[in-house]
Amino acid sequence: MSRDVILLGHGSGGRLAHQLLDELIIPALSSVGPADQNDAAVLDAPPGRLAFTTDSYIVDPVFFPGGNIGDLAVNGTVNDLAMMGARPLWMSVGLILEEGLGKHDFSTILASMKRAADVAGVRIVTGDTKVVPRGKADRIFINTSGVGVLEHDLQINGARALPGDIVIVSGTIGDHGVAVMASREGLELDATIESDTAALNPLTSELVAELAGALHVLRDPTRGGVATTLKEIALQSGVDLRLSEDSLPVKAAVRGACSILGLDPLYVANEGKVLMLVAPEAAARALAILGRSPLGGDAAVIGEVVGKGTGRVSLEAGSGAVRNVEMLSGEQLPRIC
Amino acid sequence: MSRDVILLGHGSGGRLAHQLLDELIIPALSSVGPADQNDAAVLDAPPGRLAFTTDSYIVDPVFFPGGNIGDLAVNGTVNDLAMMGARPLWMSVGLILEEGLGKHDFSTILASMKRAADVAGVRIVTGDTKVVPRGKADRIFINTSGVGVLEHDLQINGARALPGDIVIVSGTIGDHGVAVMASREGLELDATIESDTAALNPLTSELVAELAGALHVLRDPTRGGVATTLKEIALQSGVDLRLSEDSLPVKAAVRGACSILGLDPLYVANEGKVLMLVAPEAAARALAILGRSPLGGDAAVIGEVVGKGTGRVSLEAGSGAVRNVEMLSGEQLPRIC
Repeated sequence: MSRDVILLGHGSGGRLAHQLLDELIIPALSSVGPADQNDAAVLDAPPGRLAFTTDSYIVDPVFFPGGNIGDLAVNGTVNDLAMMGARPLWMSVGLILEEGLGKHDFSTILASMKRAADVAGVRIVTGDTKVVPRGKADRIFINTSGVGVLEHDLQINGARALPGDIVIVSGTIGDHGVAVMASREGLELDATIESDTAALNPLTSELVAELAGALHVLRDPTRGGVATTLKEIALQSGVDLRLSEDSLPVKAAVRGACSILGLDPLYVANEGKVLMLVAPEAAARALAILGRSPLGGDAAVIGEVVGKGTGRVSLEAGSGAVRNVEMLSGEQLPRIC
Repeated sequence: MSRDVILLGHGSGGRLAHQLLDELIIPALSSVGPADQNDAAVLDAPPGRLAFTTDSYIVDPVFFPGGNIGDLAVNGTVNDLAMMGARPLWMSVGLILEEGLGKHDFSTILASMKRAADVAGVRIVTGDTKVVPRGKADRIFINTSGVGVLEHDLQINGARALPGDIVIVSGTIGDHGVAVMASREGLELDATIESDTAALNPLTSELVAELAGALHVLRDPTRGGVATTLKEIALQSGVDLRLSEDSLPVKAAVRGACSILGLDPLYVANEGKVLMLVAPEAAARALAILGRSPLGGDAAVIGEVVGKGTGRVSLEAGSGAVRNVEMLSGEQLPRIC
């Protein structure tokens, strides 16, 4: 029995750790042979500026409809690179395992990581594994860090929003957070709600190539959801945004689950959606690019930048009533990614 | 009271998370202003190959004689880059905090990270913070990933050991592991044993510059200690190594604590030492470089590569008796880094 679970010794750096690495982790994630295992990977970078990012994943439960902590961890870091207009190149994987984690579950997670990395075209080139005693972690935590290359001279970032910019979201919002929360709470739903976890770089690379200087901001609305992400951008750029409530794409099942769980979809995390702010003359082209991508099927214009300002974000209801949108407060959705 | 500790909401991505970032984490670690906080850092790389590495730190206790998890996490990743002959450039910091962690301790750890980064000349450019409920982690886990540049064409790695190479260690062995274990076990010692945690890149950059092609392997003997690290190198290079037991530099206090704790210093982790394998004609020069560095005060020749082979490492005692050295087995020293 104990042969099928992770032991403290698997984190020792000694014989057991090498066995786990050689028999399970390396074959699953990478093709680095024993002779090439060193303290760091040595790599040739293509020309261009580099993007560098990191994220730790502590999602509970580890397996949820539509994905697991493994593909989530790969896609999340790929997307952070993609949001800077970068092409993802290399990824590191830092594993913290709780003693007793089943090797079968661990293998499933590793296989999901590899598949996600292959889809995104990113290479897992370096890693680290630690094990903590039972009760000192929760099954598995994963850190992924990523390096990408910017093969253009554009400035795409949260400080570039301009008055008149159109705010577009690439698809329905709230799917990921609701899928995880419903799974954690054991909520029985009529329709299964699946996480939207996906690598967005195939989509963002097209947007960057075709929209060029008219593409001002790309950001994925993860923790804190669309509301918090747009508030960040408004503050960063010193502009005011106006959203239209009726235009927000939300699946009926997600809306229903949100009302049961007491959540507002505007604050729920997404893991396969991108918010973009584009010059008004480029909005139609952006929607066309989104429309022909499987990642942008339900894309919608959800608002605009109304002018220079102090970072105010407002939401206009169908009735014409307008309310302020603030960042997520409190601990509405812990351990969602 | 609750204002002085980390709350679940600090990991939400919302208002509390931004507060923690703006008031505590960013001022401590970095000088990135709010307008420049994006999903990834965008950086200009100097010419040369890049090195990329990652490590998670789960050390228990978090504070130990000679350091804490913060400087340990910075130095460890700096050293992994240094071992490839790279100059460390950028670092990411991924924090996993247990709800209830004291903000005072957290600030102390962050300040140590910044000091260590400044000493090593590495810039902390990107980060992430997650919070898990009480009992789902153990105070704080830190992942650091690092990117460095190789400003030369040398191949320095574990597969480059050649027959005749001299094995040198840069100083006394076992200090870090014994400092942590003695602290964890509440061992009362006559002399305080301090961790050797330190950034080795000032030393390795001199070794690389002065020894050039005669410098074959650099590796820091962390988890698994000198024994496991040399066994790895022997296997990777397909050579046999012979060590001389009497030449191993071990502080008397460390030797004493090891016998109380039932440890062999050869298997105990170091965090500020480097093993190097150099061509025989370069050994004297290597020792001279080490001798003039504060990081190499107790450097010693501890063995040599006896020939091509199957990765056998043997240890010759003063009596002339020879025994095989294998990798660390089991879980002798959990949570040492």
